[in-house]
Order: sequence, then structure tokens, then C-alpha cells
Amino acid sequence: MARLKTIYWNNNTLRMIDQTLLPTTLVSVDITDVKDVYNAIKTLMVRGAPAIGIAGAYGTYLGVAHLPESIDKDTFFDVLTKNADYLNSSRPTAVNLSWAINRMVRCAKTLVAEPVQKIKDALLAEAHAIYELDLKTCRAIGEYGYEELKGFTTLLTHCNAGGLATSEYGTALAPIYIGAEKGKKFSVFSDETRPLLQGSRITAFELAQAGIDVTVICDNMAAYAMSLGKIDAVIVGADRITRNGDVANKIGTYSVALVAKAHTIPFYVAAPLSTFDAVMKTGKEIPIEERAAEEITHGFGKRTAPENVKTFNPAFDVTPGTLVTAFITEKGIIRPPFTTSLPALLDAPHA
Amino acid sequence: MARLKTIYWNNNTLRMIDQTLLPTTLVSVDITDVKDVYNAIKTLMVRGAPAIGIAGAYGTYLGVAHLPESIDKDTFFDVLTKNADYLNSSRPTAVNLSWAINRMVRCAKTLVAEPVQKIKDALLAEAHAIYELDLKTCRAIGEYGYEELKGFTTLLTHCNAGGLATSEYGTALAPIYIGAEKGKKFSVFSDETRPLLQGSRITAFELAQAGIDVTVICDNMAAYAMSLGKIDAVIVGADRITRNGDVANKIGTYSVALVAKAHTIPFYVAAPLSTFDAVMKTGKEIPIEERAAEEITHGFGKRTAPENVKTFNPAFDVTPGTLVTAFITEKGIIRPPFTTSLPALLDAPHA
Repeated sequence: MARLKTIYWNNNTLRMIDQTLLPTTLVSVDITDVKDVYNAIKTLMVRGAPAIGIAGAYGTYLGVAHLPESIDKDTFFDVLTKNADYLNSSRPTAVNLSWAINRMVRCAKTLVAEPVQKIKDALLAEAHAIYELDLKTCRAIGEYGYEELKGFTTLLTHCNAGGLATSEYGTALAPIYIGAEKGKKFSVFSDETRPLLQGSRITAFELAQAGIDVTVICDNMAAYAMSLGKIDAVIVGADRITRNGDVANKIGTYSVALVAKAHTIPFYVAAPLSTFDAVMKTGKEIPIEERAAEEITHGFGKRTAPENVKTFNPAFDVTPGTLVTAFITEKGIIRPPFTTSLPALLDAPHA
Repeated sequence: MARLKTIYWNNNTLRMIDQTLLPTTLVSVDITDVKDVYNAIKTLMVRGAPAIGIAGAYGTYLGVAHLPESIDKDTFFDVLTKNADYLNSSRPTAVNLSWAINRMVRCAKTLVAEPVQKIKDALLAEAHAIYELDLKTCRAIGEYGYEELKGFTTLLTHCNAGGLATSEYGTALAPIYIGAEKGKKFSVFSDETRPLLQGSRITAFELAQAGIDVTVICDNMAAYAMSLGKIDAVIVGADRITRNGDVANKIGTYSVALVAKAHTIPFYVAAPLSTFDAVMKTGKEIPIEERAAEEITHGFGKRTAPENVKTFNPAFDVTPGTLVTAFITEKGIIRPPFTTSLPALLDAPHA
């Protein structure tokens, strides 16, 4: 099964697939500069909460990689933290970005007395560790998720929480890939996911590449497909999960969760611990990114709405934890009541 | 307030706006041939249940308009009924099409003993009557709807059940136009309505033309907008309503009804009596048109899904009557329980 290499360190550069060109063109670009990392995240060349965490980690390293050995420590740390803030401002909703960047900054700060080269080496190693952790984490999510979902046949997913949103296996799609390795053939319905069509452009692309049966539907068809008995369970990723189980994820996720509930279809959220916000109490506190009107009015290069109409274009929505059947994490399946199970997980020493 | 002339009889031809070119190009085409009427309905040049009823009526006339006075009656009626069946097969879900065509055929049959010219004149007059009835009906729906909805400020609608779906005022949008005439300013959220974007291309276009405040959202944003308190009520049109209140309407309507219910937001369906199927007992019997995969995979002229993926593209869905707050008709507001209120209406002598 061919797996795509979404984002990885290659020959002293950060190589990533330019996801804005999918599904018609599959090309990778090499990035060596912090500003280009910022733009890659901002323009969704790289997207998906875990993948932008990895991009942020390597970006933090790239921001100091060129600094000379002779630089004074204050200036070094000034550049490091300014770049960290800059990268962190590229997109507001996914918590993995700040999680990864904070890990990088913390790593450097523990080495403040060491030579610059040693700090730089440690930062690159830390970015690699974040990348490796994502590989391991996604595989674990896939294993736990497969055990939970193996009784189902047809899964609906929204947006892309697959290999192209992470380093390799993905989160929501990981159980499907693990299933394929074990000979279990899931069928997948992929919501196209307006406005940027990550479902049709990216999820359908990577599943088809991996030889997995996939059917693309428009977002507004999910409820009807459920009423016809075509969907056994829903599985999505997440950009931020608060202590009570509220989930920020791609716009439309909340709608899918509501219509799944109306059909008593289980609704799973697959996410690494780095997506859980141990501080925020509820989804009301999550900053929701609003994006440009053109994503709606000029969907596909061509004007599809009249001039001078207003738009409302939130990139994410918040699904109340009460609609979530369970969270699939690298530490296992987390079940309701989330107001007790999540704090127990997040406040444990390993988290 | 500028109102668009969607479809009307003009100088011995059927003139209609080519709605496939909206919102960027507003042009009308003149049709004189039954085959072109069929294609106009099939390709959605004209769409909306009442408007395709009007097209079917004039199309039925155009199919016999060229027949010579000397033709024998059997041949005349043979051509008439073949054309009626042909036009009726252009789209399966909306009942108004067969309602209008059946009315035309019945009209001709009552005059079987008369000269051909007299039957033709009567058919043209019958098509005019269907057109005039639609004007009057939509205005009445608007008046009743306005009285029902005037306490609300922000209405969400899905697809287009406006002037461009009918002869003039529309059904779901009629209360908004009547409100504008009376000085009540509704704000409208318009779901873009994938795959063919009737909400962004057509509803937003006609509302903006009429000076009404309109905000376009992607279909998957409606639930989140509701959770933020942005929507007071939902109003949609219908393509067929069965005796128990089940509603076939543009795909995505069912999803909107479910998410409205989850937020206890009223969900109204505006439709003329010609949209009610007095025979069908439940929505399970309604034939649901499936359309070409390209509407999903090549949304806007450009490929947006990978090759060789499957699609599921139902053009309509069925919303159970249990999710409908009330029907707004030209005979007034029809309230639950629909299993008694609808048969009472449909079996009454006027229906």
C-alpha cells in the first residue's frame, strides 16, 4: 500500500506535499526559511492539526538554523521566541501548533548555558522527536481505533484527518489503514468538505492511492445517506479538544455529529493527546478562525456567488462533547463521562 | 424592487432566463420547440418545482402548436400524449411537472369533439391559466407566510424557492418579498446548496437584486450558525409533499431540518397545493433523481476529486413531516398533525 510522505526532514530542508494542488497535481516543495513555513501553514499547503505541529517544530528550528555560532545568547533566544510567536500566529484553532512550538522553546531554554551549536542540534533533534512521536502516536490510534471499529463496514469521515494531515497514518483514517494491513476492508464515505474540499481533494485522494473503497458526497448528503442506512459510524479528527470533551474541528463536523445522533450512529473523534487542551474548560473558549469570503464566493477559481453579497466563513466549528461516542487516542479509547475521564487523562503525569 | 421575469410567454415563444449562467450572466432564451423545453428542464436552465410546471405546460402546447388544422384527431392526441410523457420524463421528483402536464392533457380531452385550432387555443389558454395561477398562488403564500414569520428577523433558506423557481414571487422567498413591500426587512442566510449552488448562484442573486440583506454560507455551516444564535427560523420550498407531510426537496434539506430541530428553530415549508401529492402516502414512495457524478467531481469546471472515486449524488432528499413546523400554502398555514390536516386539505373539493 503506497503511503504518501506528507511532511519530513530531507537533506537539511523541510519537504512537504503542496496540498493546495491536490488531487490533480502531486508535488513536494523544499522549505528552508521560517517565513515560508509560516506561509505554507497559512495558505494550507500543509494542513491538519498534527502536520502543522510538525511544520511548526521544524519551522522553529529553521528560524535559528542560520544564526552564527558567535551570536550572543540573548539575541539567539530573542530570535527563537519571536519566530515561535510568528509561527504560532499562522493559524489560531489547532492546539497542536502551539503544543509543538512550546515544546521546541522549552527544549532550547533547558540548554541556555550551552553553546549555540549544541542548542541548534538539540532543536533539530526535538523536531525529529515530535515527528517520530506523531508516527508512533498515529499508529497507536490506528490500532486502538481498529479494535473499536472493526465490527463496522462503512465509515463516514469529514475533512481530512488522514496521512496528509499527519506524518503518515493519520488519526481518523489510521484505523482504516491498520484495517487494510490486517485484511479488513472498510468502505469510506468522504464528505467533500466545503469550502476547501479537503474531503474530495485530499481524503479521497489518499484513500484511493491506498486502494481503499471511497465514495465522495457533498456535505449536505450525509444525513440522507444515513437515513438510507449507508453509514455505520462516523470518525473525524480534531483541532482542539477541551477538558469537557468539546471538539473544535473542520467546519461541518458539528452538523455531522448532530445528524449522526439523530440516526443513533456512533460518532468517534480520533486525536493524539497533543490535540487535547489541558487548560481550556469548554469549547466556548476556543478561538475560531474566520477565513476569506473568496473561499465561498470563488470556490473553484470561478465566481459562484453574486458580487456584494455577504458571507460567513468560519473554518471550524465546535461539537459538544455530549455528541461524542468516544475519543480514540494513543492511550486508548476514552469514554464518557468526559468531564471525569478527560481530566483524569490530561492531568496524569504522562500527558 | 426589481423582480426578474423567470419564465413567461412572449410573442409566441416561451422565454426563460438561462439559470445555468447565473450569477455572472443574466440572459434569456426563446424556446419554440418541445425538445428544447425538455432539455431546458433536464439541464436545469429552468428549475424549481413551480417553474418547471409552467415550462411543462407551455411545452405541452408547443408540442402541438405546429400541427396542421387538417390533422386527424387520433394523430393529434397521439402527439399530445407522447409529448406529455416525454416532458414528464425530464425530471422525476417534483410533482408540479406532472400536475401541470396532466392538467393540459385533461383540458384537451374535454374538447375532443372540437376543431384542432380550438383545442390548440384552449391549450395555450390553459398554460396561461397555470402561469397566472402560479403568480396568484405565490403572492398568497407570501401573504400568509409573512403573517406567520413577521416576528422573526433572520431566516435561513436552502436551494432556491424564490422568484427564479416560479413565475415571480417564489414560494419560500415570497414572505420575504411581501415583507419588503410592507417595510419589514428580513435578513437571509442562504445555504450555497452543493452540488449546483442554487443558493449562492440563484437565491443570493435574486435577493441581492431585490435589495434584501443576504449572507451566503456553505451548507455545512448552517448548524454552527444556528448554535451561535444567528438563525431565527428556516424556510424552504418543496418538490413533492406526501399525505403524511413528508417533503422531497433539494438534497440537504433533511440535514437542515435535523439541525434546526436540534436547536429548536422552527422549520417551515412553503409550497402551492400543486406540490402536494394527494395520492402518495409517505416519502418512501417518492422517486429520488440521482444525477451525474461530474456535478460532485468537477464542481466548477475543474476537477476537484481524484479520478476513479465513486460518488453518490441524489438531487433530493426526504424530510419527515415530523420535522416540519408548518406548511405555508395559498390556502393558509397547515399545522400538525399533518396526518389529519393534510388529508383534510387535499381531499377537499377545491384541491
